[in-house]
Amino acid sequence: MSIEAVDFFYLSMPQVEDIGDGSQDALVVRVVADGVEGWGECEASPLVSVAAYITPMSHGACKPLRDVVLGKRLEDATDIAALAAAVEMECMDLLQAAHTFSGIEMALWDVLGKKRNAPVYELLGYTAAYPKLPYASQLFGDTPTETLAGCRKARERGFRAVKCGWGPFGRGSLNDDREHLQAAREGIGADGTLLVDAGQIFREDVEAAARRIPLLEEVNTVWFEEPFLGGAYGAYAALSARSGNVKLAGGEASHNFHMAQQLIDYGKVGYVQIDCGRIGGIGPAKRAADYAVERGVTYVNHTFTSHLALCASLQPFAGLKDHVICEFPFAPKSVAWDMSETHLMPDANGEVKIPAAPGLGVTMSAAGMRKYLVEMEISVKGKTLYRTPKL
Amino acid sequence: MSIEAVDFFYLSMPQVEDIGDGSQDALVVRVVADGVEGWGECEASPLVSVAAYITPMSHGACKPLRDVVLGKRLEDATDIAALAAAVEMECMDLLQAAHTFSGIEMALWDVLGKKRNAPVYELLGYTAAYPKLPYASQLFGDTPTETLAGCRKARERGFRAVKCGWGPFGRGSLNDDREHLQAAREGIGADGTLLVDAGQIFREDVEAAARRIPLLEEVNTVWFEEPFLGGAYGAYAALSARSGNVKLAGGEASHNFHMAQQLIDYGKVGYVQIDCGRIGGIGPAKRAADYAVERGVTYVNHTFTSHLALCASLQPFAGLKDHVICEFPFAPKSVAWDMSETHLMPDANGEVKIPAAPGLGVTMSAAGMRKYLVEMEISVKGKTLYRTPKL
Repeated sequence: MSIEAVDFFYLSMPQVEDIGDGSQDALVVRVVADGVEGWGECEASPLVSVAAYITPMSHGACKPLRDVVLGKRLEDATDIAALAAAVEMECMDLLQAAHTFSGIEMALWDVLGKKRNAPVYELLGYTAAYPKLPYASQLFGDTPTETLAGCRKARERGFRAVKCGWGPFGRGSLNDDREHLQAAREGIGADGTLLVDAGQIFREDVEAAARRIPLLEEVNTVWFEEPFLGGAYGAYAALSARSGNVKLAGGEASHNFHMAQQLIDYGKVGYVQIDCGRIGGIGPAKRAADYAVERGVTYVNHTFTSHLALCASLQPFAGLKDHVICEFPFAPKSVAWDMSETHLMPDANGEVKIPAAPGLGVTMSAAGMRKYLVEMEISVKGKTLYRTPKL
Repeated sequence: MSIEAVDFFYLSMPQVEDIGDGSQDALVVRVVADGVEGWGECEASPLVSVAAYITPMSHGACKPLRDVVLGKRLEDATDIAALAAAVEMECMDLLQAAHTFSGIEMALWDVLGKKRNAPVYELLGYTAAYPKLPYASQLFGDTPTETLAGCRKARERGFRAVKCGWGPFGRGSLNDDREHLQAAREGIGADGTLLVDAGQIFREDVEAAARRIPLLEEVNTVWFEEPFLGGAYGAYAALSARSGNVKLAGGEASHNFHMAQQLIDYGKVGYVQIDCGRIGGIGPAKRAADYAVERGVTYVNHTFTSHLALCASLQPFAGLKDHVICEFPFAPKSVAWDMSETHLMPDANGEVKIPAAPGLGVTMSAAGMRKYLVEMEISVKGKTLYRTPKL
C-alpha cells in the first residue's frame, strides 16, 4: 500500500489565552493508505506546521513534506523509518519539518497497526503493555491557595501523582516558591508523588536554580523539570551534580533523537521526557526509550494535549515495566477532550492502561472536531496551496 | 525608538530545481524603527518563516513573532539581546521561530548601526575589521570533468580557496570520490585551499566517512564538512579522533548558540560554521565566535545566498584576525545577486573587505528584488493575516 492522502485539521478554542496551557489548540493529521485511515497530532503551531507541508521547495534539502511523503510505500515499520530518514535529508533546512512530520508519522503507525490488527506497541517489538501511573499535569496557581486546590482536586479524582509547573514559579522570591511547593505537597498528600516543572525560567542560571533544591527536597519532590533552556546542557549537568535526591527531568522540546540522547549524555538528567508530537513521531521516541534504558535513565512521555496524543505517546515505553510514571493532561481545554471518543482514565488503582486495540487504539470524533475547526487558506502566486479539507 | 514595522519579501527564481543550491530563493526582511530602514535575510523556507511571524498564538510559550517583536524598544545592543531572550521564552514551542527571527535580528543591527553611524562590527565590540580569504563555495559537478571546470573557474576569477560539496560525493564508490577530489585539487591549483562538504551524506556511519579520510588527505583537504547528521555529535567526535590532518567542520544548522557550543565541545570540530540567518541572528553568532576563540576552534560564516547575508555573516568574526577563511557564494542564482546593489568582490590579493559603512553596509535594490517577488496570502477564519507588502 502507499500513502494516498495526508490532511490537516487545525482545531482551536474560540479564545486562546496567554498562559502555559498547551491544550488550547491542536493540529490533527489524517493519513489514508490503502483505504485505511490513521490519525496523529502535531504538538506544534498549527498554521506553521501546515505551511511546512505545502510550502514551495527552496532547494533539494529544503522541500515541503508533501513532496517527501505522498505516494510513498507503507508496508511495514521499515517503510516508516525510511520515510523519516528521507525527511531528515530532504527537509534538512526546513526547521519546522520535524514538528509537522511528527503527526504524520504517528498516523502512519496507526494505519499500519489497523492493517495488521495489532496495537502499535506490538509493532515496536513489545510483547505486553504495562499500566502506567499517570500524574495530573497542571499549572501552579496564581496563589498557593489555588495550587493547593488544584492538587487536592487531582487527589480527589484518583491521581496518586501530580506535577505543578510554570505560572509564578521562579519569578518571585524563594519564599513564594516554598509556599507553592508546600501547598502542592499538602494537596497531593504525604504519600503522593510530587513533580515540579520550572518551564525554563532560570535560562542558564545554575545558582538561581540550585537555590530551589532545598525547597524541593523539603517536600520530597521526585523530579525538577526544565530548570534551563533546552540546549543548556552544561547548566543541566552542573545542577545535576548538586541536586541531591531530586533528579532533573527534561527533553520535551527534542525534535530529533539526538537531542534526547544529548540531554541524557551531557545534561545528566534522570528522566527524559519525550513528546511524540515533536521528536518526529513514535519511531525516534522508541529509539530514545531504548537509549534511556541502556543508560539507566527513566523515559516519560510529554503530553499536555489530547488523548490521541496521549495514546501515541505511551506506545514507545508501553513495554517498559519499570518506567511507570506518565504525564496525563489533567485539565485540558474542551477542544483536546472533545476531538476523540476514546479517553484513558485512571482505574481504581490510579493507573491507566494503554489500549490493546489495533493501531493507536483511538476512535476520533468528527463531530467533536468540527466544533473547533479553524478555516485556513494559503496561496502563493495566486494559486491556493492549502485550504482546510473536509472533515 | 521602537520597532514600527517588520515586512517580509519572498523572492524566488521562476523555477526552483531539486539541487543543493540554496540561492534559488530568499526571504528578505525589512524593519523600520524611528523612520530608519534595516534589512536582514532568513536562510530558511520563506512561506514557513512568514507563517511563524503571523500565526495565531497557540499558548503563552508558542506565540507568533509579531507579538513579541512589534513595538519593542530599540535603543542599543542590549535591547536586541533582550528581544532575543523574549523570543526564546515566548516562542519556545514554535520551532521555526529561530529561522524567522534571524532575519529580523540582522535588520535590527542594521538599523542600530545606521542610527549610530557605525558598522555593526563596531557595535559588537570590534575595533577593526580584518580582510577575509573567501572560498568559492560550489557544488561538486556531476562528473569529475565538471568539478575540475568549476574549480578552475574559481581560480581564474581570483579565488585562492574553493569548497566543493554535495552532488555525487559519498553516493558512489570510493574511487568516484577520489576522482572528484583529484579534479578539485587540480582545478584550484597546488597552492590553493581545498575544502570538502559531505552534506550529511554518511548520516551516523563513522566507518563510511572514515574511508574518505585518506582520499581527503591525498589532496591536502583543510576541512571535511558535515559528514553526519547535525546532532550526531558522537559520530563527529569518533571521526575527529581519526581524521589526521583533516579537521572536521560543521554547525550551519545551529538554530541557537548552544548547538554551536555543543558541536565544539562534544563534536570536536576544528571549524564551526555559523549561518546568521538561522542561529537567531548576529548576536548569538557573535557569542559562538567568542566561544570558538575560547576553545581554540576557528569560526567561519555559512553563506550560500546573497551579499546581504554575506555582509551580515561576516560581522560576528570581523575582528578576529586569525579566523581568515570565509564562505563566499561563488555562483549564486540571479535572485541572490540582483537583490542588492552592494557586492563584496575579492581584491587583487583574493581577499574581501567588510564594508565600513554604517549598519551592515549594504544598499538593497528595490528594482532587483521586485523582479523576483512572490505574492503570498495567508488567511485564518476568513481574515487575511499576511499579504505580500509593498516593496
